[in-house]
Amino acid sequence: MKSADPGPSWNKETLICGSSLEDYIRKVETFHGYAAPGMILGGFMVDLAVSHMPEGMLFDALCETPKCLPDAIQLLTPCTVGNGWLRILNLGRFALTLYDKKEGEGIRVFVDPRKLAPWPLARDWFLKVGSKEKRDLKELVELLCQMGSAPLGVQKVRIQPGFLKLRRHREFAICSRCKESYPCDDGPVCLGCQGQAPYSKVSPLEP
Amino acid sequence: MKSADPGPSWNKETLICGSSLEDYIRKVETFHGYAAPGMILGGFMVDLAVSHMPEGMLFDALCETPKCLPDAIQLLTPCTVGNGWLRILNLGRFALTLYDKKEGEGIRVFVDPRKLAPWPLARDWFLKVGSKEKRDLKELVELLCQMGSAPLGVQKVRIQPGFLKLRRHREFAICSRCKESYPCDDGPVCLGCQGQAPYSKVSPLEP
Repeated sequence: MKSADPGPSWNKETLICGSSLEDYIRKVETFHGYAAPGMILGGFMVDLAVSHMPEGMLFDALCETPKCLPDAIQLLTPCTVGNGWLRILNLGRFALTLYDKKEGEGIRVFVDPRKLAPWPLARDWFLKVGSKEKRDLKELVELLCQMGSAPLGVQKVRIQPGFLKLRRHREFAICSRCKESYPCDDGPVCLGCQGQAPYSKVSPLEP
Repeated sequence: MKSADPGPSWNKETLICGSSLEDYIRKVETFHGYAAPGMILGGFMVDLAVSHMPEGMLFDALCETPKCLPDAIQLLTPCTVGNGWLRILNLGRFALTLYDKKEGEGIRVFVDPRKLAPWPLARDWFLKVGSKEKRDLKELVELLCQMGSAPLGVQKVRIQPGFLKLRRHREFAICSRCKESYPCDDGPVCLGCQGQAPYSKVSPLEP
C-alpha cells in the first residue's frame, strides 16, 4: 500500500514576498514553464531584497544575469523588461539590485558560494560542477526550498548617476530601406538594414 | 443624470491568443503596471504571429525593441527572458519574430507606418510626433483596440544558424576579488570587478 503523500519537505510557513512558497511555485510553473532551481533561489533573493526596501519606495531593478533571475523579479515586483523598470546587464553573476529610481540607493542580493558548503548538491549545481544529466532536479528544488535565504549575502550599493539617467527622447524616422520606423540617431538606415538583424527575409505574407 | 457606461468601443468579440481583449488588458495591468498603448499593439502583434505558427511547434522569440513588446510576448507565449526562449536585440524597430527553435524558420510581425495613415492619433504616437503630454492615453488605447492588426505586416524569415546555436557550456570559477561565482572565460576576475558594474559598493549588511 502506498503511503499518503507527505507533501513538501520544507517549512510550510515559508513566505516569498508575502505569499506561500507553494503559490510562488505555481506562478513560476505558469510563467517560466517549470520550477527551475534558479527560480526557487531567485524567489528567496527577491524576497530578501524587497524586505530591505523602505515601505512605499518606487524602485527599479538591475539583474546581473539573463538566466532565471529576471523572471523572479518580473513575477514578484512591479519591474518588468517591457516597462523599463528592470534592466539586465550580463555581468555573469547571479545577483540583483533594487534601487531608488531617483537617488540610486539600493540593496544588492547575491549568492555567497562559501555559504553553500553545507549543501554539496546545491553547491555543485550553482558552480556547474559535475553532469547536469545526473542531477536529481526534484531533490535539488526541495533542497533549495529548505535552504531559503541561507546562502545569500546582502550589500548596500549606490547606482551611478549615469546609469540612472533617463534615456533622452529619440527622434524617429522611416527607414528608406525597410520602410519601418526607427530612431534617427541609429544612422541613415535602421540597425536591421545595417546588417544587425540575425535573419534573412524570405518573403512577405498577407496578414 | 449620468448615463450608463457604454463599455468599450471596440468589437466585444476581439480575441488575443484565444482570450478576450478585456482579459488581456487585465493581465497587462497586473504584469506591466498599466494598459500602455505599446502593450495593446503588442498583443495584436503576438496574436498575429502565433496564428501563423504550425500547431504544436516549439518556438523561440526574438524581439527587436526592449519597449513594451517583450512583455506582450512574455504574457502571451511560453517565451520569457529568464527561460531563454525570448531574446531581445535592440534594433530600434517595433517588431518580433517567432521561429522554430531547431530549424530557424520563423514569422516576423512588424508595424507598417504606411498602414497607420487613416489614424493620425495612432500614427503620431507611434512615430513620436508631437507632445506626449498632450496625448489622450485613454482615447489612444481605445483606438488601438479598434484598429487591431490593421497596421501590421507579416514576413517569413529564416534565423541565421549562428543565432540559433545554443550557447556553449561555460565553466564557472570564484572571482578572487568579490568571491562570487562567474564564468571563467570572462577573464581573471568577473566583469563586475573589471569595472562594468554600474554601482559602488557602500557596505555589507546582515541578511
